[in-house]
Amino acid sequence: MKKINVTIWNEFRHEKENPAVREIYPDGIHTALKNGLAADDLEIRCAWLDQPGNGLPPEILENTDVLIWWGHRAHHEVDDETVKNVHDRILAGMGLIVLHSGHFAKIFQRCTGTSCTLKWREAGERTILWNLAPDHPITRGIGDYFELAHEEMYGEKFDIPEDGKVIFASWFEGGNVFRSGVTFERGRGRIFYFQPGHETYRNYYDRNVLLVIGNAIRWAAPELIQAPQAPGYPPLHEINQL
Amino acid sequence: MKKINVTIWNEFRHEKENPAVREIYPDGIHTALKNGLAADDLEIRCAWLDQPGNGLPPEILENTDVLIWWGHRAHHEVDDETVKNVHDRILAGMGLIVLHSGHFAKIFQRCTGTSCTLKWREAGERTILWNLAPDHPITRGIGDYFELAHEEMYGEKFDIPEDGKVIFASWFEGGNVFRSGVTFERGRGRIFYFQPGHETYRNYYDRNVLLVIGNAIRWAAPELIQAPQAPGYPPLHEINQL
Amino acid sequence: MKKINVTIWNEFRHEKENPAVREIYPDGIHTALKNGLAADDLEIRCAWLDQPGNGLPPEILENTDVLIWWGHRAHHEVDDETVKNVHDRILAGMGLIVLHSGHFAKIFQRCTGTSCTLKWREAGERTILWNLAPDHPITRGIGDYFELAHEEMYGEKFDIPEDGKVIFASWFEGGNVFRSGVTFERGRGRIFYFQPGHETYRNYYDRNVLLVIGNAIRWAAPELIQAPQAPGYPPLHEINQL
Amino acid sequence: MKKINVTIWNEFRHEKENPAVREIYPDGIHTALKNGLAADDLEIRCAWLDQPGNGLPPEILENTDVLIWWGHRAHHEVDDETVKNVHDRILAGMGLIVLHSGHFAKIFQRCTGTSCTLKWREAGERTILWNLAPDHPITRGIGDYFELAHEEMYGEKFDIPEDGKVIFASWFEGGNVFRSGVTFERGRGRIFYFQPGHETYRNYYDRNVLLVIGNAIRWAAPELIQAPQAPGYPPLHEINQL
Repeated sequence: MKKINVTIWNEFRHEKENPAVREIYPDGIHTALKNGLAADDLEIRCAWLDQPGNGLPPEILENTDVLIWWGHRAHHEVDDETVKNVHDRILAGMGLIVLHSGHFAKIFQRCTGTSCTLKWREAGERTILWNLAPDHPITRGIGDYFELAHEEMYGEKFDIPEDGKVIFASWFEGGNVFRSGVTFERGRGRIFYFQPGHETYRNYYDRNVLLVIGNAIRWAAPELIQAPQAPGYPPLHEINQL
Repeated sequence: MKKINVTIWNEFRHEKENPAVREIYPDGIHTALKNGLAADDLEIRCAWLDQPGNGLPPEILENTDVLIWWGHRAHHEVDDETVKNVHDRILAGMGLIVLHSGHFAKIFQRCTGTSCTLKWREAGERTILWNLAPDHPITRGIGDYFELAHEEMYGEKFDIPEDGKVIFASWFEGGNVFRSGVTFERGRGRIFYFQPGHETYRNYYDRNVLLVIGNAIRWAAPELIQAPQAPGYPPLHEINQL
Repeated sequence: MKKINVTIWNEFRHEKENPAVREIYPDGIHTALKNGLAADDLEIRCAWLDQPGNGLPPEILENTDVLIWWGHRAHHEVDDETVKNVHDRILAGMGLIVLHSGHFAKIFQRCTGTSCTLKWREAGERTILWNLAPDHPITRGIGDYFELAHEEMYGEKFDIPEDGKVIFASWFEGGNVFRSGVTFERGRGRIFYFQPGHETYRNYYDRNVLLVIGNAIRWAAPELIQAPQAPGYPPLHEINQL
Repeated sequence: MKKINVTIWNEFRHEKENPAVREIYPDGIHTALKNGLAADDLEIRCAWLDQPGNGLPPEILENTDVLIWWGHRAHHEVDDETVKNVHDRILAGMGLIVLHSGHFAKIFQRCTGTSCTLKWREAGERTILWNLAPDHPITRGIGDYFELAHEEMYGEKFDIPEDGKVIFASWFEGGNVFRSGVTFERGRGRIFYFQPGHETYRNYYDRNVLLVIGNAIRWAAPELIQAPQAPGYPPLHEINQL
């Protein structure tokens, strides 16, 4: 069976600089995700900002079916060339899963064309994620909703385009709502934004959060969408023959 | 100035049967809305279920630019012929504003093609309506959000089609979220669904609720969308001349 | 392997009344489709208007995963009860494939909420169907486009809702364009409208037309979307526990 | 009356290098558009690539309500900083009208997040633009369709996001179809892409082409969408009070 090549990209700075984060994710958020997502049909590798080429040189990108992205404080340190290479790969069919504070990552803004601004508040609030797409592959195994005891609040208005299909909508204890799971298509690539995962909470160990991310990997994998006959553009003479 | 002809349709049963409702809306929900929406550019009349022709005979419909609909317990008593006449008028350009429990009205289901099911709980919960479309005419005068001290909870999953543009998304004290203000277009007609307005709360006296409904009337009025040149379909010979 | 239960519904009047149609479809359009779509994973039956219960009594509908619909002159003869039963079944997850003049079928209008009006001209025009969704399961095996030598012209403006996802867009020799393959979701059901198939042309023997309809059957089959955990709505006490 | 400040940006290279183009647009495409769009409610200025700051320094952008963009061969010569400044201004509410070969402009790709690839053929084909949004302000004064005797063919598949609302769909003599008028919203800004306007045809002197562009200017002007009460985001303490 051909495995899905997954690359988990992490900014990997909080874990080095903040003992509270390191205590939760001693080997980095990427490692917690890698362990939690491990499955026979997935070939998972990790990459991070401070590696050469931002950890995403062409040889890695070309062998990535689905890219998972976690960043927060150093979005501006990601090279524009890296952003362009990742974007080109998405348009060619690579899946992209953007987590939590990745809403402000250059690559996500590059795909949406918007500012991706939102409201936020760090108060460890209880949150409930409501399932608005019960038949969607991304919600397989999730019921009507699931809860997280503590998460950073992200609230509307979330500045994303109208074609974002809402998979989850969240309730936060403090009074806010948020489109917390949203899909997009860009070129031949599928994109999923998913809100949970602030660095100071343990939510990347949560069964439901991992289940959703795992479902999203299988949904976004180009194997599922690149039908063998998917056309390139015909030579002009073919057009002229019409 | 040509005024916008508004017809407020009310089931008008709770007010007669339930003293608690009558105390809040002694002359009916329709009268409270009529008084609250009164303005120089609006010509407002009321109609209700127990009038001949369900209160909506052709001569009324043909002189209605925007129809406001409140119903709850007697949806099934609305004649199918009335539903067809209202639907035809919407396709020709009449605006429709569906309030609260009107989500289950035959005419709303006829326009959406879906079941319009949702979750609900009657517990007088605090609700916050978040403004997801700050530049939309329907939210003129509304800031980031507004609150209602007590409202019936309506919660996701709300079974409506994907083309529903979300204007408001609500937070409810008890843990639910809801797309509480949604627009649709059907034929030449514009439709707005708006959640607030349970018969046992005073929310049709609320400044913000009335402001939103008033904005929606001006947005949905066909004067605004029926450009003089809006084409009928050309005779077939014209097509054949192509 | 569980087979997909397909019911092909045909108005089945032209074939009886018009020798020119009978020559092309001697056993009815439904039979040509049944033969052309035959495959190991499909269990195909046929039904038509003049059978008891319009050919779609509950016991048939309850055993139909995907319903294919061809009608033209007798849309008004389909009972409203039949329309309601089919619609309820679609909302519960049954797929619906509406062919050609079925754009005016009560069931399609019931699902769209619009008039489904369009321009038309019967002149045996050459048409080219352009593939706007090369990675969609419905276009599997189809390249950039395919052609039909003769088809009835259907032209814009096609009055359907904005959530119609355009899979094919057609060019007609006489100067018109049309959204000729469009998908919708209503409740848990998937719907595909496909333009080819006027009764006086041989297009239901065309390889590409059959390929598209066959792909649409597999795409619309509820097995593909009814994940075992797909939730019903929880009892209210569960909601109240939130 | 406050006028709408319109800036017409032109690459302005073909006119200098190609006598055939110069003969049609002796003072540049921008001048033909400026003259054709002149109206009492518009304050129109022009800018072009070879001016300092690509002709769009901050003092110009800050005083532009609607920017019209025509480019073709030198998209890569537009500075990334200019693209960023224009994009930021769009998100803040400036309208953008992208013409013809501007589909490949950096700023349009920045807004869509896609490749904007399409098929093309330069053969002076007759084209018919069908009006799919007869009630939209952009089609005011346009009937069911209008024709152009000669235009470069642009054909599907046009790689743009699903939220593109189709205003015009085009038929081309050679057998192609194209979404030739499409609107988008990004942040607070409105965007309109319009296909006509190859440099070797006289279509920027065409009454209907000018009418559509003029309508699009009034539709995209931020005065129309920036209601005075349009909210900024409340200070965090206000959020925390919820």
